[in-house]
Amino acid sequence: MRKYVYAFDDGNKEMKSILGGKGANLAEMTKIGLPVPPGFTVSTEACNQYYEDEKKISEDIEKQIFELLQGLEEKINKKFGDIKDPLLVSVRSGAVVSMPGMMDTILNLGLNDQSVVGLASETENERFAYDSYRRFIQMFGDVVLSIPKYKFDRILENEKEINKIELDTALDVENLKNIIKGYKELVKKETKKDFPQEPREQLLMAIEAVFGSWNNTRAIIYRQINDIPGHLGTAVNIQSMVFGNMGETSGTGVAFTRNPSNGEKKLFGEFLMNAQGEDVVAGIRTPQSIEKLNDTMPKVYEEFVRVANLLENHYKDMQDIEFTIEKGNLYLLQTRNGKRTAPAAIHAAVDMVNEGLIDKETAIMRVEPNQLDQLLHPTFEENAMKAAEKITTGLPASPGAATGKIYFNAQDVVKAASAGEKAILVRLETSPEDIEGMAAAQGILTARGGMTSHAAVVARGMGKCCVAGCGEIKVDEGNKIFRISGKIFKEGAYISLNGNTGNVYAGSIPTKEPELSGSFSKLMQWADDLRTLKIRTNADTPRDAHMAVKFGAEGIGLCRTEHMFFDEERIAIVRQMIVAKDVEERMIALDKLLPFQKKDFVGIFEAMGERPVTVRLLDPPLHEFLPHSDEDIKTLSEQIGVAYRELKETVEELKEFNPMLGHRGCRLAITYPEIYQMQVKALIMAAIEVKKEKKINITPEIMVPLIGHEKELGIIKELIVNTANEIINDSDEKIDYTIGTMIEVPRAALTADEIAKHAEFFSFGTNDLTQMTYAFSRDDAGKFIGEYRNKGIFEKDPFQRLDQVGVGKLMEIALDLGKKSRPNIKLGICGEHGGDPDSIDFCHRIGLHYVSCSPYRVPIARLAAARSAIKNK
Amino acid sequence: MRKYVYAFDDGNKEMKSILGGKGANLAEMTKIGLPVPPGFTVSTEACNQYYEDEKKISEDIEKQIFELLQGLEEKINKKFGDIKDPLLVSVRSGAVVSMPGMMDTILNLGLNDQSVVGLASETENERFAYDSYRRFIQMFGDVVLSIPKYKFDRILENEKEINKIELDTALDVENLKNIIKGYKELVKKETKKDFPQEPREQLLMAIEAVFGSWNNTRAIIYRQINDIPGHLGTAVNIQSMVFGNMGETSGTGVAFTRNPSNGEKKLFGEFLMNAQGEDVVAGIRTPQSIEKLNDTMPKVYEEFVRVANLLENHYKDMQDIEFTIEKGNLYLLQTRNGKRTAPAAIHAAVDMVNEGLIDKETAIMRVEPNQLDQLLHPTFEENAMKAAEKITTGLPASPGAATGKIYFNAQDVVKAASAGEKAILVRLETSPEDIEGMAAAQGILTARGGMTSHAAVVARGMGKCCVAGCGEIKVDEGNKIFRISGKIFKEGAYISLNGNTGNVYAGSIPTKEPELSGSFSKLMQWADDLRTLKIRTNADTPRDAHMAVKFGAEGIGLCRTEHMFFDEERIAIVRQMIVAKDVEERMIALDKLLPFQKKDFVGIFEAMGERPVTVRLLDPPLHEFLPHSDEDIKTLSEQIGVAYRELKETVEELKEFNPMLGHRGCRLAITYPEIYQMQVKALIMAAIEVKKEKKINITPEIMVPLIGHEKELGIIKELIVNTANEIINDSDEKIDYTIGTMIEVPRAALTADEIAKHAEFFSFGTNDLTQMTYAFSRDDAGKFIGEYRNKGIFEKDPFQRLDQVGVGKLMEIALDLGKKSRPNIKLGICGEHGGDPDSIDFCHRIGLHYVSCSPYRVPIARLAAARSAIKNK
Repeated sequence: MRKYVYAFDDGNKEMKSILGGKGANLAEMTKIGLPVPPGFTVSTEACNQYYEDEKKISEDIEKQIFELLQGLEEKINKKFGDIKDPLLVSVRSGAVVSMPGMMDTILNLGLNDQSVVGLASETENERFAYDSYRRFIQMFGDVVLSIPKYKFDRILENEKEINKIELDTALDVENLKNIIKGYKELVKKETKKDFPQEPREQLLMAIEAVFGSWNNTRAIIYRQINDIPGHLGTAVNIQSMVFGNMGETSGTGVAFTRNPSNGEKKLFGEFLMNAQGEDVVAGIRTPQSIEKLNDTMPKVYEEFVRVANLLENHYKDMQDIEFTIEKGNLYLLQTRNGKRTAPAAIHAAVDMVNEGLIDKETAIMRVEPNQLDQLLHPTFEENAMKAAEKITTGLPASPGAATGKIYFNAQDVVKAASAGEKAILVRLETSPEDIEGMAAAQGILTARGGMTSHAAVVARGMGKCCVAGCGEIKVDEGNKIFRISGKIFKEGAYISLNGNTGNVYAGSIPTKEPELSGSFSKLMQWADDLRTLKIRTNADTPRDAHMAVKFGAEGIGLCRTEHMFFDEERIAIVRQMIVAKDVEERMIALDKLLPFQKKDFVGIFEAMGERPVTVRLLDPPLHEFLPHSDEDIKTLSEQIGVAYRELKETVEELKEFNPMLGHRGCRLAITYPEIYQMQVKALIMAAIEVKKEKKINITPEIMVPLIGHEKELGIIKELIVNTANEIINDSDEKIDYTIGTMIEVPRAALTADEIAKHAEFFSFGTNDLTQMTYAFSRDDAGKFIGEYRNKGIFEKDPFQRLDQVGVGKLMEIALDLGKKSRPNIKLGICGEHGGDPDSIDFCHRIGLHYVSCSPYRVPIARLAAARSAIKNK
Repeated sequence: MRKYVYAFDDGNKEMKSILGGKGANLAEMTKIGLPVPPGFTVSTEACNQYYEDEKKISEDIEKQIFELLQGLEEKINKKFGDIKDPLLVSVRSGAVVSMPGMMDTILNLGLNDQSVVGLASETENERFAYDSYRRFIQMFGDVVLSIPKYKFDRILENEKEINKIELDTALDVENLKNIIKGYKELVKKETKKDFPQEPREQLLMAIEAVFGSWNNTRAIIYRQINDIPGHLGTAVNIQSMVFGNMGETSGTGVAFTRNPSNGEKKLFGEFLMNAQGEDVVAGIRTPQSIEKLNDTMPKVYEEFVRVANLLENHYKDMQDIEFTIEKGNLYLLQTRNGKRTAPAAIHAAVDMVNEGLIDKETAIMRVEPNQLDQLLHPTFEENAMKAAEKITTGLPASPGAATGKIYFNAQDVVKAASAGEKAILVRLETSPEDIEGMAAAQGILTARGGMTSHAAVVARGMGKCCVAGCGEIKVDEGNKIFRISGKIFKEGAYISLNGNTGNVYAGSIPTKEPELSGSFSKLMQWADDLRTLKIRTNADTPRDAHMAVKFGAEGIGLCRTEHMFFDEERIAIVRQMIVAKDVEERMIALDKLLPFQKKDFVGIFEAMGERPVTVRLLDPPLHEFLPHSDEDIKTLSEQIGVAYRELKETVEELKEFNPMLGHRGCRLAITYPEIYQMQVKALIMAAIEVKKEKKINITPEIMVPLIGHEKELGIIKELIVNTANEIINDSDEKIDYTIGTMIEVPRAALTADEIAKHAEFFSFGTNDLTQMTYAFSRDDAGKFIGEYRNKGIFEKDPFQRLDQVGVGKLMEIALDLGKKSRPNIKLGICGEHGGDPDSIDFCHRIGLHYVSCSPYRVPIARLAAARSAIKNK
């Protein structure tokens, strides 16, 4: 028979996957001789078996439970169900990965109408016995019988009111008996059955309830948010009770071995005398700070300090400990690695290295890269949050906190910002024309679009707070209002955005700027020493480039050139270029653009120094640069002196059904080679100028987007080489450059051997590659991707976390084929996934040379890369 | 030293790839003892070497040419460049694949001012000598020196006019000398050099010109149209001259061994006495029918008949023979397999089998599958074509010929057609709402969209003539006109469309219906016996299904269910379903749709009998079913009683940036499972009804579109099975069904092992798969795909011919993975490529079980499949 149930002295801390976190640690503490009330654990395998057996506890499992229960009876010399001196137990869930608040606890199980009398006489404490019984009924009723907790509370409150009692501790035996009577009536009314009196039945029901709660909605959502697979299951811990509510020498408490908020090495926690666990959380009585225990019970306190140190040294990590004091004796009910804020995680990890407790690698593994996001962006003042009125939640598209007045178009935001106002840009969705407004805004809120929509990508690039795809708000851009559940928010109204959670609040909430500690720099330094992946950034402007270098970027992996086209001075020329009737007209416009582009590149090269810079030639379809409303077309018609009808026809002609799959990327250069020619000229001229004037050796990496066929790259490479060499030959500087391509079209991956014959580097454009491989438009998928996550099709949005099975397979195919043709080909990634730790790990494992991400994610990527190097050693 | 030049008696007909078609056949005829003037061939390898050497004839090649020339001199005992009795040669191109009219010929090469005098005295025919010389200068001037031919013609015509001469044959020596003088002055003026007098220089220049013409624009375009790879190169044939212009016992002609127009077994050709080759084509004198040669020179005729029979028997195919008679002696200058019309190809092939000349397999290999298209659709009356005024050319999107009055929307077409008019639907592009109008129209003309745009796909399905993506016409649907180069065509004006060429004509051109011959059926029967691939059809209606069965379809590979939704009766219900506020409302609408869908399926099942039918569940995004203009929304609002603003909001909400990558296919069923539920119900209920009432055993194949993740299919399969089994269990009929999926998303191909765990069949949706793999929207790619073909990136539009390198690789990956999970998985293709012979060959080779194509392409597919079976034996 398979083993489903384990006594505490039968396990250890390595057995988490079978015993759950709580069970494994109870076993470990038992093993090292700490005072743990004895008990046993029903394993996660039993939980999974329960679901396989269509939610039935099998005979095998039941048999083992009662065998272990018998062992427990023998150990503490009490009988379960005994009416004189009953063995009472707690039943608590314990998942493999800690899921605080998600699973439920039952204390004092085993009591019934008869044994409560026995307990009273055995402990000579009638009040304690009845208090324990009413707690048990309430918890069992809530957790097992699904009776809403407030209904029990109402009975309790009623009794207190009648008797003018303030604190629960003041309830006397009579009061408690009344309450118990009320509770039992409530159970009868709600379940049409009497409260179960048979302890074995109570136990099995409780275990089933714990198993069942593994798949309650809260638990499922928590697992989704925290990326916990559903197949792990939960264990159930059955432990003999010790009582914190046995009077004034008893109590209960929780404590961290270090401060979980800032990492300071000092015991941090609280306790409450004459109470059971739930009283501490309930907030009816105010618990005391843990140091106060030294005053109340100095011996117990001393013992607790010793145990806390012992546990931290044993686990080599900050511990979060639950304890109970029964009649002056200390018992440990739980220990686990303490949850902590990002600053605390960093501070404690660095301290522990200095203390010699852990090594640098362990320190790095202690800090979740995504936690760093909290450190790099503004946050709301914590106090101010209490009064905040949340109106809706969208997608947490770009982290940070922002507050300001709402405006519904980019111009209005720019105007407001230049008048010194804090502005929030609210749009149905953003488009490249909104860039200026996005830059001027404190934050961005959109009604449509997913985690990689235009708004999200650009905002992350800017390090600006953004909540996207907030479907509940109905934006009326024309009337400059948005509606939500009957309320109207007009232009100028204050709202606040939390880009980490996606929450949107009415009104203004003060924010505070982030501060980076010395521990942060130290940890980053260690990460840099350990990682093998290079970290680059996606930056289109000197400002972004500077920022990224500050955050530790080692180069630019993606410098998009199209954002440069939207500047007010330039857009008219760009439009002239687009509506040109022939090559000559187009060349005239391009010649005007050339000095602007050159200036951009000079700025970026100067910001980056000799770090590598990959410049992507023009990518978006040309219609993105044209106005679409009749009115705007009229204005443009006057501006550039092209007849309205002609212009309108051009706009119509350029319209596309599926712009993502349209006339863009390198396809533009096949039909209009002169555009790339101009860009290459500007690039090489900039490199020459910077080399000459600043003595910086620039080796541009010229990247061609959207290649799907090797001949495309062959033709365009020839164009680039001819253009570049002509300029280089005419100058007296020697400039080296390389030519490569994005791998973002599935066909490029599938034919990478042919493409690598032309390409000196590949940069995986996993945004588009994901779109094509999944046939998901990132701008449209928002509508159904939620449903996909709810139904368990996706564990994670594939635009946020690389789909390693599908898209990843294409990447591996491309890598293998590419290296076959060109063994020393340089390999990187510049999609959004370049900033996602899990995706970075994949990039490390398949052997990319660098990842590139938005400036604000560079520290995250540095840390993630180091963790990958450690994990995959 | 590599061998670059081959004497005629040094080769044979198997050496086409080296000697070109013409050279190989000259060698073969020489080998079997026919009277061929001796000569030699400069090989295709020399041509390729010429291009590799940057357009220079290498020393090696030049040396070999003159060695072989010396051999020729010895053989016929004349000297090249001799001033008394010069060896004259013809220089003619000869590509591997026959490219008539594409390459150029030079006759009489070797003449100059001095040797023309020698030739005159040696042949005692001064007129002949000067006639030969003027012809030589003209051909050399045109082909080698690139002087426009009309400039020579002008000099010739001028001389004839001055001397009041009608026929060239009437020119006397003096006239010819004047002309030669004029020609030489023209050459001097145009090239700034004298006409080259040195025969060896003439020869090398001529060979270079032939090499050069391999890459002239005409040749490149011809190769594109006919799928001839550019790397083959051309050979050059240098042959000693025989003269048809040596007086009345000399002449020249061409003849086919059978009638190339209908295949009749009877010599078919013409000849001209006292003439050189180009005179026959030039049309100045009218050639005589070949039988007339029997009257003029019976001995020569008898000899020619003998040779013709001998050649046909030798080559076992209809021959196209060029001959010259010099002073009563017959010489053969060329033989090749004759080009023929589709009816001729079929008729001759079947005859030859009956004659025992060839076997059935050979007969099948003689008919190009795509030729059949000519037979299955109406064509223009040939006589009427002479006066036709072509106004533009679009893409030949669906074959056939059509003539009628133009209308600019579907309703107007329907109205006109029901009034008995022949109507042509002219649209910017078509959408599903136009279906009824398309069905009522004679033909369809669109300004936008490629070969697989909506218009093209639907028209091909209907077997209806369509010219698509005709960018030159400016369609103004509002004003019901289109403009082209200044002209305006108003509603009601007549135009005519040729769907085989893409030509659009002004005015009405009478058409004639196709007739299918007995030979056709015979050939198809043989094809069916030989092929291993099954041929299915894409059919959405009983009408299409009947048609396809008539054409030999063995099942339906793709029955789209969405077209059924557009019927006037149903669309309002469909729209109610879409705007439903909750599941209940949606179910009410779906319940109303159910009987309609069931009726559709009953009709299709009855049409197909027990042949397999694959039904694809709903695929397009829901917004395709909604109106988009404010006016139409208002109308609908009144129709279905939903407030305008609410409806408008729904329309806006459903809008997508990239519908191709949006909320469609199986994604609809993840969010609205009740839609597929209704469809499955209808399908199973129909199968039960047909089984019960018609005793036809129906085994529906239920196909889920757009699967990208195995979990999607897992969830939807469960839905289908539950729905279907409930109905089956409630009935007293046993219905088997299978569930499978389209493979049209790259990720599905990459994870086909996982998907095959759920899928009993895969059907490759190569339209979408091509779109995603190439990141080309078929609706938008029209704008640049032309440029891609011009620049040689594509040999062929990847939407017409499967991209075997990229998309094909994905298919092979899917196949391998799919079979790994489910060895007996059924495999088919239902994209447009299922009707393309080359793509069918690929499908055969990778081991699909069937291809599915539009009804009108079924015969083509049957033939193509047979050819693949033969080729890949």
